[in-house]
Amino acid sequence: MINSNIIEQIKKYNNIVLAAHVNPDGDAIGACTALALALSKIGKNPVILMDEYPEKYNFLHGREYIHKEYINDEPLELFITLDCGDLERLGDYISYFRKAPITINIDHHITNTKYGHYNEVKKEASSTCEIIYEVIKSCEIPFDDKIASSLYTGIAFDTGGFKHSSTTSFTHEVISDLLKYKVNFTYIMNKLFYSRSLTSSRLLGLALSKIELLENDKLCFCDLSKKEMESLGATIDDVDGIIASMQNIEGVLVSVLIYEKDKNEIKVSFRSVGDKDVSKIAKMFNGGGHKNASGCTINKNLEAVKKEILKKIQEELF
Amino acid sequence: MINSNIIEQIKKYNNIVLAAHVNPDGDAIGACTALALALSKIGKNPVILMDEYPEKYNFLHGREYIHKEYINDEPLELFITLDCGDLERLGDYISYFRKAPITINIDHHITNTKYGHYNEVKKEASSTCEIIYEVIKSCEIPFDDKIASSLYTGIAFDTGGFKHSSTTSFTHEVISDLLKYKVNFTYIMNKLFYSRSLTSSRLLGLALSKIELLENDKLCFCDLSKKEMESLGATIDDVDGIIASMQNIEGVLVSVLIYEKDKNEIKVSFRSVGDKDVSKIAKMFNGGGHKNASGCTINKNLEAVKKEILKKIQEELF
Repeated sequence: MINSNIIEQIKKYNNIVLAAHVNPDGDAIGACTALALALSKIGKNPVILMDEYPEKYNFLHGREYIHKEYINDEPLELFITLDCGDLERLGDYISYFRKAPITINIDHHITNTKYGHYNEVKKEASSTCEIIYEVIKSCEIPFDDKIASSLYTGIAFDTGGFKHSSTTSFTHEVISDLLKYKVNFTYIMNKLFYSRSLTSSRLLGLALSKIELLENDKLCFCDLSKKEMESLGATIDDVDGIIASMQNIEGVLVSVLIYEKDKNEIKVSFRSVGDKDVSKIAKMFNGGGHKNASGCTINKNLEAVKKEILKKIQEELF
Repeated sequence: MINSNIIEQIKKYNNIVLAAHVNPDGDAIGACTALALALSKIGKNPVILMDEYPEKYNFLHGREYIHKEYINDEPLELFITLDCGDLERLGDYISYFRKAPITINIDHHITNTKYGHYNEVKKEASSTCEIIYEVIKSCEIPFDDKIASSLYTGIAFDTGGFKHSSTTSFTHEVISDLLKYKVNFTYIMNKLFYSRSLTSSRLLGLALSKIELLENDKLCFCDLSKKEMESLGATIDDVDGIIASMQNIEGVLVSVLIYEKDKNEIKVSFRSVGDKDVSKIAKMFNGGGHKNASGCTINKNLEAVKKEILKKIQEELF
């Protein structure tokens, strides 16, 4: 159920801006494109403000509503934020938000600061797309193949392919409804979770070949030097997903991946399960994150970072 | 909708044997355990005949009904086959099937030979577990956490985590209903699709490090010698999943993995997308499979097999 005041505002105005958090992910992009497609179906004039759009999502429709700036003869009437926990996460678009006469905040982050005139914050929702599904339904806008594909993408992305504990019975009910439309879900799932470039596959190969298991095989460690990455033509973007593969090794409770972004600039990623709180370690080095996924940057050389991090982990978590 | 004659037979008899195909997979095991749990809830005496049970599924309930032989003072009244396309796939349990006064065949394979007195073969179902969900509902047996977990496991397994094109709106409707019970689906999904042993992770690492791309990066090739596998303490069981990672490389249309089971005994696995029919190649070497996933065994040395296979693939598919 969506707050009826929100549905009323959406129905009332025509010039509507949608914006999500900076570095938009699958849920942010899915929610923006789905809502823009739906609003335009009922004669609205939606503009998505987004300053970068990852190539990976080029298969989605609704991208035609994306602009870097609000350029329109008519003034902006309603600003809707999507998947954006606080105002700072809007980046530069905060200035438009401040000028907007009416603002709506639709999100599922538990930490949401409820900064809108109207707020629909559902922490029990798997994703913002799951809420947008309800918004579109409440607005009585008919779904179609394009809207369904955007919503599917966002829900699949944020639930890790229906795997994360945020997935609920209602999540699958929504997906069941969306699959009544033509959604190329095999393609979407592959794109989101399985597809890797040749270079990043080779880097994953190198990483898995050199992992070390410590603490009775419960602690998985890997380091990648800039030289090693360069030898494969890889950049730090190719590191994506390596720590997940480390953490998937049977019996591993904590994984640590350290890689050299630059000389004396070492990125550290942590993953863990259950009670092993890796955010504690990240915070000791001015990093951040959650209990089971965190990270930090340390300005020392690779060997020194390895020594220091492993010592802390072994002291604090084992 | 399940054929009412089948529901009638299930309600009528008490001493019921369930059996699936040899080398049971997640769907076969999920279907057998779910149905056994359900039948015992209405006072039946179910026996699952299964001669091996992969350790991976030790988290499921209903295993207590598994036996290698039918040992019971009362004679077997009804034999239900699950996920078993033809009688030969029952293995040694075919003798019990032949002795059974009444037989029911429940399956979703398009090739099912309808060998039972009663047959519920739904080729549009994602999995046998999806059909068993309907059977249990039609029998008016209430679901519970254990039954839901078995059915979830089978459906998730056979759909590749809701990714394969066999997944439908109804599949998600069933999952939505099952998640009203306590199903540890994060654990199940990890167990089915992500978890790897250290050795198999290292072997995957080696394989990804040495892949070759041919035919403008559309053909992905890898060979693993027995010596290489032994150097990591790996066996042919650890090869599982390597070909999927090869096929997930962006732009790859055909993948070929060859590995040395023994001297002059080379296993060949093929994967492809779209129109590239790799079953054609497998058949040339007395192998089998589907258009996009096939395999064969060739009794030559690794180098000779590599040469011969690549030549055929390049001639026939590129």
